[in-house]
Amino acid sequence: MEQLKGACVFAQSGGPTSVINASFYGAAAAALESPNITRVLGAAHGIKGILNDELYDIGMEDRAELELLVNTPSSALGSCRYKMADPEKDDKDYRRILEIFRKYDIRYFFYNGGNDSMDTCHKVSRFMAGSGWNCRVMGIPKTIDNDLYGTDHCPGFGSAARYIATSCMELSLDAGVYDYGTVTIVEIMGRHAGWLTGAAALASHFGAGPDLIYLPETVFDLDAFLEKVKGLCQAKGGAFVAVSEGIHDKDGTFISEYGAKGGKDAFGHTQLGGLAAYLANKVKEFCGAKTRGIELSLLQRCGAHLASRTDIDEAILAGKTAVEAACGGETGKMVAFERVYENGNYACRTKLIPLTDVANYEKKVPLEWILPDGGGVTREFIDYVLPLIQGEPRRAVEFGLPRFARLKKVKAK
Amino acid sequence: MEQLKGACVFAQSGGPTSVINASFYGAAAAALESPNITRVLGAAHGIKGILNDELYDIGMEDRAELELLVNTPSSALGSCRYKMADPEKDDKDYRRILEIFRKYDIRYFFYNGGNDSMDTCHKVSRFMAGSGWNCRVMGIPKTIDNDLYGTDHCPGFGSAARYIATSCMELSLDAGVYDYGTVTIVEIMGRHAGWLTGAAALASHFGAGPDLIYLPETVFDLDAFLEKVKGLCQAKGGAFVAVSEGIHDKDGTFISEYGAKGGKDAFGHTQLGGLAAYLANKVKEFCGAKTRGIELSLLQRCGAHLASRTDIDEAILAGKTAVEAACGGETGKMVAFERVYENGNYACRTKLIPLTDVANYEKKVPLEWILPDGGGVTREFIDYVLPLIQGEPRRAVEFGLPRFARLKKVKAK
Repeated sequence: MEQLKGACVFAQSGGPTSVINASFYGAAAAALESPNITRVLGAAHGIKGILNDELYDIGMEDRAELELLVNTPSSALGSCRYKMADPEKDDKDYRRILEIFRKYDIRYFFYNGGNDSMDTCHKVSRFMAGSGWNCRVMGIPKTIDNDLYGTDHCPGFGSAARYIATSCMELSLDAGVYDYGTVTIVEIMGRHAGWLTGAAALASHFGAGPDLIYLPETVFDLDAFLEKVKGLCQAKGGAFVAVSEGIHDKDGTFISEYGAKGGKDAFGHTQLGGLAAYLANKVKEFCGAKTRGIELSLLQRCGAHLASRTDIDEAILAGKTAVEAACGGETGKMVAFERVYENGNYACRTKLIPLTDVANYEKKVPLEWILPDGGGVTREFIDYVLPLIQGEPRRAVEFGLPRFARLKKVKAK
Repeated sequence: MEQLKGACVFAQSGGPTSVINASFYGAAAAALESPNITRVLGAAHGIKGILNDELYDIGMEDRAELELLVNTPSSALGSCRYKMADPEKDDKDYRRILEIFRKYDIRYFFYNGGNDSMDTCHKVSRFMAGSGWNCRVMGIPKTIDNDLYGTDHCPGFGSAARYIATSCMELSLDAGVYDYGTVTIVEIMGRHAGWLTGAAALASHFGAGPDLIYLPETVFDLDAFLEKVKGLCQAKGGAFVAVSEGIHDKDGTFISEYGAKGGKDAFGHTQLGGLAAYLANKVKEFCGAKTRGIELSLLQRCGAHLASRTDIDEAILAGKTAVEAACGGETGKMVAFERVYENGNYACRTKLIPLTDVANYEKKVPLEWILPDGGGVTREFIDYVLPLIQGEPRRAVEFGLPRFARLKKVKAK
């Protein structure tokens, strides 16, 4: 296998997670040690940083600050949601990327993101292969939604799941504190895949949590839901409900659009959101119960103080594996995880899968893991998620508050 | 001082906190050890549990479960928001309480709550004093709002402040991840007192946090706010804002009522809430920025996983002090905290203050600690809050999730 010497560039894309910077750290640490990699660069705001020639010299960072990245949420380099054109139709962006790669002698490109980012990564990989510029391209998975195809699970999911399960357990205790019936509705991210919403079931399973859980994989029937809640209010004086932001009716219309459709939404929401408040109001009208809608919102994806150590370690591993595989000659692949049980104990192995296989597929919760009518998820789902939420993060704390990484971000010359 | 032998009853009232159960533990542990206290009872749902003769025998609980109370959020015995009549006008409830006290030979009554609860406690104390039934009544402070008069700070505040500052620091990183301007607005509890909203400034001071912070002690000018946000969007491409749920205009109208007043609120909210979404929409209309409104909602008061160790220890101390003081002959008092600095280090001492002084006063943030126009708070405010958020809780974790206390709740005979 041919030795390829040159610079590498690492970029972060899509919605951030609690551990995407752990993958950055894993990749950066491996790249800084690699004899093949002459220089480690980071792109500002994903692929846009390459297009705009905004690259940082990661070799100029203090090593101690880089290490703090493992428990620093959000994307330290900045992120983007930039849709690349099909290179067959419009190769302007790709020619620009090639120009930048030549300028800095970039021979390794690592892209850390979800579905859309793997699509970008795939397109760049194909273009480079046909360009004559010898450059290896690797995808590193990341998404709280856990919907990437070809990998047992995604870095970012375990920490968000832990945040959701912990918060739902705490909320469940708080919601039941009075002796009159209250109905609490928690809205959880995941528009098409219910992995995160299903994680709320861990609270119910291991202590106290939602009575009803609705994933976006199945059809949501508003009338049946209201009857169920009413029944719970009569039987036990209240209800605690978890819903995915993406629950929809049999025609595929998001329930969150109901208010807007009826011209009732005063706020002109175009993003999803406001669903919890909408359902809380419906329940109030229907049962007369005191209700409260709670959106976990961005908190669930940036709550690094509740990150899972397993997730952090695997995120570091994903970054490191991408760099080592590329240095070993691989290109056009994404790092993926395989779950193995050794003497009954969970372990995670890495593998490489072609980017062609990953891009534009969405992995949803298997229907056989979902109980009907808000009944939650099966024991198989619980067993799948449980190993991913284990372990406390090694939090750096200063003045009682998180001490997150502070990068110098020295512009590459 | 007269030795008084008999049962005690402990009750929790008002909105729960992350540490109200720590005070319950402190009181229960002291009472179980006291030679004067023959039996330790807990009332279901505050004073209502006494009126309804729903008392639990705390002596029947496993000691290990009682110890888990120190990091179990919400009110383990249940809470209430019950307004007692003035005993001079209607003494029915008081006569019922006396009847129950006689039935169980209750000689000690401990009430753990905020302003309204101290009012209840005061009324019960006065009635008992005139009833001929020898009974000692003590208040134990509790409120995330930190608005109780006569005490340097309240158990519950430090943990909520730590949750808010940590979450704001995390959100601040997430909110700034894209290269286009986003405006994030976080809504924080505290209708009349801005202690919790001010705590968001700790994030800004020690790392990254809100650019603008609005407390309810000052007048909120919507137009000036919009101009400020626009200026920030132009200068730095976005803004992160923290607002109290209780911000109001110069006429005293809550900003959260603006939508409802204009007939625009689709959800018919009667509780405060929806303010963040309302302001986010206003900003969007005014600046065209991408906006997001986030309510910390119940999470800020039940996030026990982020409780401050200092707050937990002080909450235990408050419960213990109340029991010891009552056994020593005190009645009609509330446990309060005094802040002392020993060799420059923060320390907390307890004192007793008459319930007459506490009831129905609200302690607000001193105006001289509030910077004008959303500028946040002064260094004095930071120095006041900082010692209260220190220390990690001793979290009991099982299966990667919190292991909260599970009480048997054996009905007292």
